[in-house]
Amino acid sequence: MKVLDHGTRKQMRAVWMDGNGIIWMIDQRKLPAALELVSAIGIFDIAGAIKDMTVRGAPAIGATAALGIAQAAAQGLNLDEAGSLLKGTRPTAHDLAFAVDHTVRQIRAGKDPRFAAEAYVESIVERCRKIGEFGAPLIKENAKLLTHCNAGALATVDYGTALAPMRLAHDRGVSFFVWVDETRPRLQGSKLTAWELLNEGIDHAVIADNAAGHYFQRGEVDLVITGADRIVANGDFANKIGTYGKALLAKEHGVPFYVAAPLSTFDFSKKSGALIPIEERGEDEVTLIGAERLAPSGSRARNPAFDVTPARLVAGFITEVGILKADELKRVMSARLRAAASKPRAPLPVGRRGKTRR
Amino acid sequence: MKVLDHGTRKQMRAVWMDGNGIIWMIDQRKLPAALELVSAIGIFDIAGAIKDMTVRGAPAIGATAALGIAQAAAQGLNLDEAGSLLKGTRPTAHDLAFAVDHTVRQIRAGKDPRFAAEAYVESIVERCRKIGEFGAPLIKENAKLLTHCNAGALATVDYGTALAPMRLAHDRGVSFFVWVDETRPRLQGSKLTAWELLNEGIDHAVIADNAAGHYFQRGEVDLVITGADRIVANGDFANKIGTYGKALLAKEHGVPFYVAAPLSTFDFSKKSGALIPIEERGEDEVTLIGAERLAPSGSRARNPAFDVTPARLVAGFITEVGILKADELKRVMSARLRAAASKPRAPLPVGRRGKTRR
Repeated sequence: MKVLDHGTRKQMRAVWMDGNGIIWMIDQRKLPAALELVSAIGIFDIAGAIKDMTVRGAPAIGATAALGIAQAAAQGLNLDEAGSLLKGTRPTAHDLAFAVDHTVRQIRAGKDPRFAAEAYVESIVERCRKIGEFGAPLIKENAKLLTHCNAGALATVDYGTALAPMRLAHDRGVSFFVWVDETRPRLQGSKLTAWELLNEGIDHAVIADNAAGHYFQRGEVDLVITGADRIVANGDFANKIGTYGKALLAKEHGVPFYVAAPLSTFDFSKKSGALIPIEERGEDEVTLIGAERLAPSGSRARNPAFDVTPARLVAGFITEVGILKADELKRVMSARLRAAASKPRAPLPVGRRGKTRR
Repeated sequence: MKVLDHGTRKQMRAVWMDGNGIIWMIDQRKLPAALELVSAIGIFDIAGAIKDMTVRGAPAIGATAALGIAQAAAQGLNLDEAGSLLKGTRPTAHDLAFAVDHTVRQIRAGKDPRFAAEAYVESIVERCRKIGEFGAPLIKENAKLLTHCNAGALATVDYGTALAPMRLAHDRGVSFFVWVDETRPRLQGSKLTAWELLNEGIDHAVIADNAAGHYFQRGEVDLVITGADRIVANGDFANKIGTYGKALLAKEHGVPFYVAAPLSTFDFSKKSGALIPIEERGEDEVTLIGAERLAPSGSRARNPAFDVTPARLVAGFITEVGILKADELKRVMSARLRAAASKPRAPLPVGRRGKTRR
């Protein structure tokens, strides 16, 4: 991603390892007020950065953990102990455990630790870049887009999912505009997506989540792209709370609604969206901002973190293998499972390592 | 309305005149953190309180101005000068100018100033009480309601519009629950509606505006009631930004959506909602909360204050003459216009003065 630093726009990732084996991260807690980098020279630094949300977003957390394992190996640490420490920081994060186990396995199979970790990171980045390749042609000259929450490079090391098509279209010289839902209660749209678009030089405006309907009515939204947290077998998907309402508005106004996500987001163990458990977070995210109390202290609040959007509202899923309709998901996933079964221990697709930094 | 003050629940209005001719107001800028009363002993106090939004909501501002004119008359001031001062505080507020002119005219026609002003205030309160009478039967035992923004007693002296049916149903012993949209960007739901419901003892929870869709999907919304800022001839109406999206969700899930408003909100000079001008407010309401910056300083924001909901999404308009369907509006308003034309200088309907304080 591009980052403005003291007036110059430079390439940066959400997390990377430098030539001395030090791991660097953008401190996402400080955004959008300040761009601060945090360095990690040991396993406790890495664990702390994941736990305190210096780095967030499932793929970016996984990438950080993979690099952390490589660093631990270079320092001669016990990889089982290092892996347990990292996996304990966010126990429900599937990508985190997968990244740790995968990297440890690769090292024990004789791979160079740094090579193994960076290949894993590149595979994440390359999947996002391909999502961008397939999605970019959807963005026409002078189009007005809408996105919800942050499905950007900060969450995925580089490119992002929903933001990948926008980055590639912008790099190709397409002019377009993005409405950024602020995304209450945690405001990832205002704080992170707007920051990414500003740094990238993509024209945009932040709006209260309430304002989207008005712009749909006025014909000022041509295309919606969001990310997804989980997509199930029938094409229903869970994403940040409020996504469903935006998808319904898009349908009402004949605006195509696309979901950008790698195939690792698909969960075919569940048949429909009704079976996806919805995390409920603390009331304070709704009733307080910083020190300011927004609601009376005696009032309760409810804070579901995700909602489920039915497949019928989705024009297509932008993945690293192409844009899929809901009724194609089963066929594509079955074919991949068959292919994987025919060659046991299929490696993760390793990207064009070192070449994706533009 | 009921107000909790040091643990006891007492009756209070948003604005009133005491036995010594002093005007008292709830300081709405301090809510929900603190209940503070502000007194006004002269015309400059009144003008200041309207200008700095100590008192807000078109009917409550009108009531404050009417009482201000009565106070000015008692102090022997020039009523034209006093009226001009008040009308200049919020130049676009229709109710404010109407209240001033009406009260001055009544005084000049020989009415006692205080009687004239209080009759005007009672007419506002009585209209709201009747909205409550007609709307309360819509609220069934164990119903779950949703409301947006603040259409409560703070804005209308007492009862409110959308909140009037809830107050009356609650007083009659009906048990129900209210989802309160926080209503970004100005948070009138969190700050004012939640405060009113808490004080009234009505069970409720504040939610991010994004969360409503999730609860509609789960079957946890049975009825929506909002206020309106302007209702035009075909039944389209303007209300706080975000209302349209909630009405669309209600339609999708078969939940009746009612609009509570006095007939004075109807504007038959406009044929459809597309002709209603939409005020756009400052970017800071979206990008800042208190001192906290929510979006990067280089990002633009857009802040439309209202949106327009089409009549086809409305189950009915709860007014002081009954619940009207969109296609009945023209007939009812025409009949009223004919009745008014047959008796020139028709007085405003004066409520049961002094009897509405429960």
